[in-house]
Amino acid sequence: MRLARVLTDTGPQIAVITDTGDHPRATLLEATRFADLFGNGDWRHAATSALNRDETITGPVMLSPADETTRIFCVGHNYRQHIREMGRPVPEHPTIFYKMSSATVGPHDDILLPASSAAMDWEAELAVVLADELRDAPEDHCRRAIAGYTLINDVTARDWQHRTSQWFAGKNFEQSTPLGPVVVTPDELPQDSAGQVDIEIRCEVNGVTRQRARTSDLVFGVPALLSYLSRSVGLRPGDIVATGTPGGVGAAMSPPVFLQPGDVVRTDAAGIGACLNRCRRRGGPHDPNIGGTS
Amino acid sequence: MRLARVLTDTGPQIAVITDTGDHPRATLLEATRFADLFGNGDWRHAATSALNRDETITGPVMLSPADETTRIFCVGHNYRQHIREMGRPVPEHPTIFYKMSSATVGPHDDILLPASSAAMDWEAELAVVLADELRDAPEDHCRRAIAGYTLINDVTARDWQHRTSQWFAGKNFEQSTPLGPVVVTPDELPQDSAGQVDIEIRCEVNGVTRQRARTSDLVFGVPALLSYLSRSVGLRPGDIVATGTPGGVGAAMSPPVFLQPGDVVRTDAAGIGACLNRCRRRGGPHDPNIGGTS
Repeated sequence: MRLARVLTDTGPQIAVITDTGDHPRATLLEATRFADLFGNGDWRHAATSALNRDETITGPVMLSPADETTRIFCVGHNYRQHIREMGRPVPEHPTIFYKMSSATVGPHDDILLPASSAAMDWEAELAVVLADELRDAPEDHCRRAIAGYTLINDVTARDWQHRTSQWFAGKNFEQSTPLGPVVVTPDELPQDSAGQVDIEIRCEVNGVTRQRARTSDLVFGVPALLSYLSRSVGLRPGDIVATGTPGGVGAAMSPPVFLQPGDVVRTDAAGIGACLNRCRRRGGPHDPNIGGTS
Repeated sequence: MRLARVLTDTGPQIAVITDTGDHPRATLLEATRFADLFGNGDWRHAATSALNRDETITGPVMLSPADETTRIFCVGHNYRQHIREMGRPVPEHPTIFYKMSSATVGPHDDILLPASSAAMDWEAELAVVLADELRDAPEDHCRRAIAGYTLINDVTARDWQHRTSQWFAGKNFEQSTPLGPVVVTPDELPQDSAGQVDIEIRCEVNGVTRQRARTSDLVFGVPALLSYLSRSVGLRPGDIVATGTPGGVGAAMSPPVFLQPGDVVRTDAAGIGACLNRCRRRGGPHDPNIGGTS
């Protein structure tokens, strides 16, 4: 099943997406946030019942899956190949940082490049959406709490990220982070023998492939990340966990390459789909598009 | 004027607090979140009008000022005296990290000590609440956007904070961070000659003073912090900025001292009031009190 947050006449609403071609169809569910859908009983049954009513919208506007209450946890240094090529040791614990929902945009929105950074860089990643609460939970319990998978491009201002020890300020520029296009339930995606989702994540900038990696190369796989977070911050329905980016970022190129106005960033994975986002210089303090997710 | 988020029969609501003694009185306003109060027109006028109606609640339950949409930005290494005693250089830029509202508790709630940390430490701080949007804003503009001041105790799991380079996981245990008791408008607090609020912040643990510092000792004063954040993540009505903690934390004691069940933490400042919170071991995965702010 494929779920999305779409724009309707009355505001954002969660929907089942039933056609993945050029003109997707959306069947609306009785929830305006993923947290509400997953937090209120049997959401799979609710979604199936809605599909049977067959009332659909064609070509809905796809929003960021994150509403203003959504928490997004991110992970650094998590692809073995990337760690090896950087000459780093394999980490003992996941490096966790935070992304505010106000930093996200929908799968077809513009990426805003702020006036205060000249070093905005791409970071394509697999992201997980939680259906259940998780506290002090073992990995097999965590696996059952996964609602589905989506994509994130953790676009990062490298200059702001490395001004101090803490990455947060470089990771949270408004409307900088593509998220989506849909949340795909685990049964639709291939897994490796360890039960880890095994798909290829790609990032293309202006038609040139810059990142390409299989998620089976993650140091901390999805259940391990969820278990770690369950023992510290705790996890809730609707939470999103971004699993880290592979090699191929612009800062590692020689000379470094960063995003420019007009650049088109494609973040994709077979089985999930693609975010396709054009970069645009932020229009200053009065840009009417500033405001993040609604 | 003193504002608070209080519990009513219909849920949390913003109120003006008119008596600061043992039995405060609350005049309810037409807003359930600070973001709504500050985001909708002339909130000072609305508050004054409500006071004239003189319909009050006596002894309201005081909640964390942060609702589930509230963003909390925190700063490290920001008191000159503390930086000197640690032998660190004065930083060129503020070190920004993030606190989720789910980590906060109200001014009289228990602080939950998680099973997974044996090193929970106190960090009393001045916090600022924003009334206006701020993007790429100079300091004098930022000064006018301040709704008021409150207190935060950025209780930190030192073991989790320093497992990796990023502090986030150690800073965001559920219901670990006292916030409140009230938001005091700037006209009620003394300022130094530079226009920086100048009050003494204190932290007492079991009746022993552990931290004591004047906010005029901040490296990055409040307007400078707001201006910095306005150029990176952007600021919105209802946002909270914690300004950093002075020396005297438990990790710096020899031997280190950390919070234990039954300990009582008092976070106070003349002119704002006090948070008084007892520490309690979290009851495991089924603790009914887990869930953060409502």
